[in-house]
Amino acid sequence: MHFDYKEHPHTRVNLLTGEWVLVSPHRSKRPWQGKTESAGGAQRPEYDSTCYLCPGNKRVDGDSNPQYTEPYVFINDFSALLKDTPDGELNEEGLLMATSQKGICKVICFSPRHDLTLPEMEVSAITKVIDLWAEQVKELSANPIIRYIQIFENKGEIMGCSNPHPHGQIWASQNVPLEVSKELHQQKKYYDQHGRSLLADYLKLELKKQERIIAENDHFVALVPFWAVWPYETMIISKRHVQSVVQFTTEEKQAFAEMLQNLTIRYDNLFETSFPYSAGMHEAPVNDGEHPEWHWHMHFYPPLLRSANVKKFMVGYEMLANPQRDISPEFAAERLRALPTVHYKKK
Amino acid sequence: MHFDYKEHPHTRVNLLTGEWVLVSPHRSKRPWQGKTESAGGAQRPEYDSTCYLCPGNKRVDGDSNPQYTEPYVFINDFSALLKDTPDGELNEEGLLMATSQKGICKVICFSPRHDLTLPEMEVSAITKVIDLWAEQVKELSANPIIRYIQIFENKGEIMGCSNPHPHGQIWASQNVPLEVSKELHQQKKYYDQHGRSLLADYLKLELKKQERIIAENDHFVALVPFWAVWPYETMIISKRHVQSVVQFTTEEKQAFAEMLQNLTIRYDNLFETSFPYSAGMHEAPVNDGEHPEWHWHMHFYPPLLRSANVKKFMVGYEMLANPQRDISPEFAAERLRALPTVHYKKK
Ligand SMILES: O=P(O)(O)O[C@H]1O[C@H](CO)[C@@H](O)[C@H](O)[C@H]1O
Ligand SMILES: O=P(O)(O)O[C@H]1O[C@H](CO)[C@@H](O)[C@H](O)[C@H]1O
Repeated sequence: MHFDYKEHPHTRVNLLTGEWVLVSPHRSKRPWQGKTESAGGAQRPEYDSTCYLCPGNKRVDGDSNPQYTEPYVFINDFSALLKDTPDGELNEEGLLMATSQKGICKVICFSPRHDLTLPEMEVSAITKVIDLWAEQVKELSANPIIRYIQIFENKGEIMGCSNPHPHGQIWASQNVPLEVSKELHQQKKYYDQHGRSLLADYLKLELKKQERIIAENDHFVALVPFWAVWPYETMIISKRHVQSVVQFTTEEKQAFAEMLQNLTIRYDNLFETSFPYSAGMHEAPVNDGEHPEWHWHMHFYPPLLRSANVKKFMVGYEMLANPQRDISPEFAAERLRALPTVHYKKK
Repeated sequence: MHFDYKEHPHTRVNLLTGEWVLVSPHRSKRPWQGKTESAGGAQRPEYDSTCYLCPGNKRVDGDSNPQYTEPYVFINDFSALLKDTPDGELNEEGLLMATSQKGICKVICFSPRHDLTLPEMEVSAITKVIDLWAEQVKELSANPIIRYIQIFENKGEIMGCSNPHPHGQIWASQNVPLEVSKELHQQKKYYDQHGRSLLADYLKLELKKQERIIAENDHFVALVPFWAVWPYETMIISKRHVQSVVQFTTEEKQAFAEMLQNLTIRYDNLFETSFPYSAGMHEAPVNDGEHPEWHWHMHFYPPLLRSANVKKFMVGYEMLANPQRDISPEFAAERLRALPTVHYKKK
């Protein structure tokens, strides 16, 4: 019997973090008697008077939103990072070590419409969200205390999203966060050794194989990474080796919007539900010298495994020992690739 | 204004992994309108004829459980790791890298009683579970393909547990898993530099401070680690610097059972619910030479944040950037320390 990575348990190396995932493809046949989630949720109105993100409404801190018609950004009323935290360090015998952290947290409403989500928005409207992301990166980079800007979206109740109004967040921090520092290390190592972008070489190989590719346009590719942890985890990678969304041309921004729509429509179509995920772009650190090794990309971490109601639990073994997955990345890519790019609600 | 780690946002270093957590103590006042979990669940019968773990019942694969009266172990019917996986490797241009993995997965029923959980069991009954853990580590270490044995428990539906019958799991693998390899690296670095156990020195400092200590007996200490990620995350650390549960004396096993009971009763009492968690011992690798740097400990990762219904979501920022917590470890320790050690159901 020969080792077949589509059938036998094995580990795969994550190029971006240097870590690895345990893959158990045979295990997807396991029956499920455990927790199920409540599916999608009812159709929402275009405007909800109780929503603190809808145009014109009052927010928790008493401020009112303007009658915005385009993507709208404001400082998070419950920021995890604050601008005015005093500097300081704690170090007791090299055992108790803490460093104070300054930062800025914002909320971005993607649309004035309460009932939409990215896959239900027009490409032109998604392009405006991307424009705002780029503006925000520019603006926040101009603040010399900021070293890293994380833009992300938690979509769906199951991903801890407390308001269904389409929105994302920005947490800009004084330090380079953990996951980013791992990716920095791995990309730098490869770049120093080969003089080329790690992700560019990886993308070239994936495009040759086609096995894990979901969609491709002139400027972006969506794929299931070889080392995906979550069942339907994906990445969008830019064909051009750039460090940040601020470097995208107008044409690239439009192509990125198209790819975002394409991928998120496939996600919604997979289980005919508003597909939950956490997603975010990984940009190079800012105010931190040049980072020619960094290659822009965006991660999608969706929790669903078998249906709109059954998610993958990252628990005991995963927390204590090693991330583990039950279906192969190739199987996931095949399913996502086969789906239509017209939203199921519009059929 | 001076930096105060109990009040201001900051990062803390995790000594065991070398990673760090973002702490935002001020953020606990955030209101919650998002997802709530259904609490604890109804009282269960002592025996459930539909449970595939109760004594005498049929399992999914057709085998029947014996009429067991003591902790009972069997091979997992849906093992993520298998004994007979063929050896093999994949390496395409250093970009797609996979290694086949053999292993053994088992299930351990803690008690024949369907209605119990660890905090509701007698110390003498918990001691028998620990005896079985030690036996299993011994037996599995005798298999030369095994390098690491992870014993763990997923407790509660919210932790992906699909059957409420009190049980845990063992996944024994051919490789050293990711989290363990991080802890190995950190402990070895300290041991090589100081000639002492990292956790022994850490424990000494924590006992001096008392701030994060929850409970202590002659042989074990339960505490909230300085770098805890989950709201009520804890560790049990052995006072004696040993590598494995197999080295515990009879007296130590009894003290460990007492500490397990003490800590899990406090957990149940915190929100007066059967407190969900994933927990597991971290042992030194086996069949891998000496590991004098390794210091036995056990982690508890519980998801609840504010009540039996509101958990902490480790989502967008946490997945893409950095683990983040909203209450300070010191506050969590204070609350757990103040709780009675008589189970709320027995009051
Ligand atoms: O093996 P079980 O209990 O069916 O499954 C549970 O624990 C496993 C190990 O942590 C996880 O991989 C699964 O996602 C979880 O549902
Ligand atoms: O800021 P929100 O949307 O209230 O909160 C959500 O996203 C944050 C960032 O990923 C998490 O820390 C919270 O646990 C989650 O509920």
